[in-house]
Amino acid sequence: VKRFESYGWHVQSVDGHDRAAIEKALAAAVAQTERPSIIMGRTHIAFGSPNKQDSASSHGAPLGEDEVRATKENLGWPSAPAFLVPEDVRELFAGRAEELGALHGEWAGGFAQFAREDPQAYQLWNAMWQKSLPEDLESQLLDAVPEGDVATRKASGKILQKAAELVPGLMGGSADLTPSNNTFLSDYPVFQKGTPGGRNFHFGVREHAMGAIMNGMAHFGGVVPYGGTFLVFSDYMRPAIRMAALSGIQAIYVFTHDSVFLGEDGPTHQPVEHVASLRAMPNLTVIRPADGPETACAWAHALRRSDGPTALILTRQKLPVIDRSKYGSAEGLLKGAYVLADCEGEPGTVLVASGSEVSLAVAVKAKLDEKGEKVRVVSMPSWELFEQQDKEYRNSVIPPGCPERVAIEAGVGQGWERYVGQGGLVVSIERFGISAPYKVIAEELGFTPDAVVERILSQRT
Amino acid sequence: VKRFESYGWHVQSVDGHDRAAIEKALAAAVAQTERPSIIMGRTHIAFGSPNKQDSASSHGAPLGEDEVRATKENLGWPSAPAFLVPEDVRELFAGRAEELGALHGEWAGGFAQFAREDPQAYQLWNAMWQKSLPEDLESQLLDAVPEGDVATRKASGKILQKAAELVPGLMGGSADLTPSNNTFLSDYPVFQKGTPGGRNFHFGVREHAMGAIMNGMAHFGGVVPYGGTFLVFSDYMRPAIRMAALSGIQAIYVFTHDSVFLGEDGPTHQPVEHVASLRAMPNLTVIRPADGPETACAWAHALRRSDGPTALILTRQKLPVIDRSKYGSAEGLLKGAYVLADCEGEPGTVLVASGSEVSLAVAVKAKLDEKGEKVRVVSMPSWELFEQQDKEYRNSVIPPGCPERVAIEAGVGQGWERYVGQGGLVVSIERFGISAPYKVIAEELGFTPDAVVERILSQRT
Repeated sequence: VKRFESYGWHVQSVDGHDRAAIEKALAAAVAQTERPSIIMGRTHIAFGSPNKQDSASSHGAPLGEDEVRATKENLGWPSAPAFLVPEDVRELFAGRAEELGALHGEWAGGFAQFAREDPQAYQLWNAMWQKSLPEDLESQLLDAVPEGDVATRKASGKILQKAAELVPGLMGGSADLTPSNNTFLSDYPVFQKGTPGGRNFHFGVREHAMGAIMNGMAHFGGVVPYGGTFLVFSDYMRPAIRMAALSGIQAIYVFTHDSVFLGEDGPTHQPVEHVASLRAMPNLTVIRPADGPETACAWAHALRRSDGPTALILTRQKLPVIDRSKYGSAEGLLKGAYVLADCEGEPGTVLVASGSEVSLAVAVKAKLDEKGEKVRVVSMPSWELFEQQDKEYRNSVIPPGCPERVAIEAGVGQGWERYVGQGGLVVSIERFGISAPYKVIAEELGFTPDAVVERILSQRT
Repeated sequence: VKRFESYGWHVQSVDGHDRAAIEKALAAAVAQTERPSIIMGRTHIAFGSPNKQDSASSHGAPLGEDEVRATKENLGWPSAPAFLVPEDVRELFAGRAEELGALHGEWAGGFAQFAREDPQAYQLWNAMWQKSLPEDLESQLLDAVPEGDVATRKASGKILQKAAELVPGLMGGSADLTPSNNTFLSDYPVFQKGTPGGRNFHFGVREHAMGAIMNGMAHFGGVVPYGGTFLVFSDYMRPAIRMAALSGIQAIYVFTHDSVFLGEDGPTHQPVEHVASLRAMPNLTVIRPADGPETACAWAHALRRSDGPTALILTRQKLPVIDRSKYGSAEGLLKGAYVLADCEGEPGTVLVASGSEVSLAVAVKAKLDEKGEKVRVVSMPSWELFEQQDKEYRNSVIPPGCPERVAIEAGVGQGWERYVGQGGLVVSIERFGISAPYKVIAEELGFTPDAVVERILSQRT
């Protein structure tokens, strides 16, 4: 009780078997509109069971036929049929259904009037509840991408402003890392009492609660919740992410500072295993974009996907511009992986990378090109989206007959063998990180063009 | 304040810049021996900085040279050298070092006296602090394995009793699932005030706290902490597990109910992605034993491993006895994977499985044997231990040239391609679970000998 009071909640304690007390407490909770309300009812486990009441053994196992009979007898309840709804209960519920039908009719009348009198608000209502999206969502978001070298978290922040304009139900925030996650909607107020139109949430330094609140928002409907934190802190909210995935609801996670390249904060803050462990979760789409345009397409996918959550994995550090006039279009992201930079004819080497390692792969290709080699670079921001493509497409991107396939990702390599094959090379990080400026870390862990080229060449001998 | 008071803590609030108040509060906290103590000191961020005090911008970035100079000036501190320890502070510390030296001398004298007067207690002290183990640990634990078909969680419970006898520092418990996790040491009391020799912890329904407490115990030294919960709830304690792995401390996690085969509790309680996501974590050894004897060897490894945590992944359901007089010895577990059941000559098919799927693999082999095929079964309880073996051993267990390799595990397949190769088959569960008796689930998800044989045969065509 004291703990929830300390949070500022409206707290009531009742005897959990006293129905009159419960009814009164529920009425008081409904009347409470300023604060969240919690009713604590102390109860007896296996209430009424002559031999199992108040015994932990009744938690994990059914009472059994005999004890069910004895319990019913003890409570003055007929022992047959197994499931009995007494006539007066049926009547009570039927009467209540009529009352509610009438109330719903009233509401519907009022709503029809609202639709007539305020067509603009009605349109907004529909846009929110039907989650309608513009057909040209991708191109509008692509137009919002800033010019020049940019961290994908920064690009995401810009794209998000446009997304909020296009998707009126998009609401969210960060677990107290707003300026770092770039999750603030600058055209809208903070969500709080007395501020209509507030769309920015202050979730507090509590990732699990953020994930749980997002789940509640998504289940309520009408809104598309997003929530940001550092990728390494996604561990604190895994159970809530899992619940979203299991429930098949739309929720968008903005996980920034996505690798050891966040730099000086060191190993406690440097995700290494997190992308792999998120990919392991069924029905969660994980997308690690390589630049601003891929980030725009990742957001578009997250906004379109209504049957499960999407995790956006974004860099802290600036990434070099990928010249899209020269290389494959970022919209390839929507297929999970695509040919970014290619060679003449069949490639002798395919480099597959995600996120910040895509531009590294392009630099590696440039070095191998100088040696006259035939190298393809595949950008693979999302395994889940790639696995949804047909085999023909998948084989066209990563030819299974290609003699040399190399995956490059600044995290554990778990699972990359699926794409590079058993003889393939996985350039990964199989250890915790290091505290240093990110370019020093890249040198130390072999994530430079020269180091990767050397790994590839030594693998051949 | 109210929140920690509600937990029963000793709570003090001070002005965090008032050194006299802090000293007084520390003395009161030290005097408090009945309860944990917390001192809350409200402070100004960037205290003394003329332009950055109380500004969030001073959290994520250094003050900068000018502001450091201005701050020192403001606080009446010399601006050079960069790091200054005033002479009177040096003297204070030097004096304190002398005091502490004398105190240590006194303690050492008392300890020597204790060692002379109570050699048995002294021996126990040494055994705990040196974490000494009997040489025949494995065989003693193997002797503790119960006969007959047994769930690995049950076998673990029996082995644990023996382990507690052999390892006096072994202490632990469960996050309120003691009877399900089989983690109670029946020869020892509960750890609580007034009960000497208590070795059973009631951690409460709070997995994260359990993991954090275990880390504290391990860092203090002298004890080997273990903690149990359902595998699916390992998500709640990932940050604490990560801290153990990053810190390289010994902690043993007893994760039971390790797959969809826990049955009726349904998808929320059925781990699917958890083994993969634990394997993704650097410096965590994950072991999923196939029967009682493998469980004994897994415990032996966990007790011997002092440079990092070990997770034991155990079944809820009974597993059939693997006839060790006929098949490979369970001590093969210590190498991560070993040939359990073999054929004459070179195998045409290698079946690799872990935990409850090992006996399934043996049944699949029997069916393929009937067709005159050459089939090997490899039990692979731990990827991490297998990766520590030399290439010769690894290739002797899973011959890279073997034309058909099949992995069978009741969880996501992520990463198994490393062992079966790109053309290999991974029999896995790429979805959330189902609520049903476990044999029904096995039918539904294709984890029966017939279903696996069919998958293998259809893969060939």
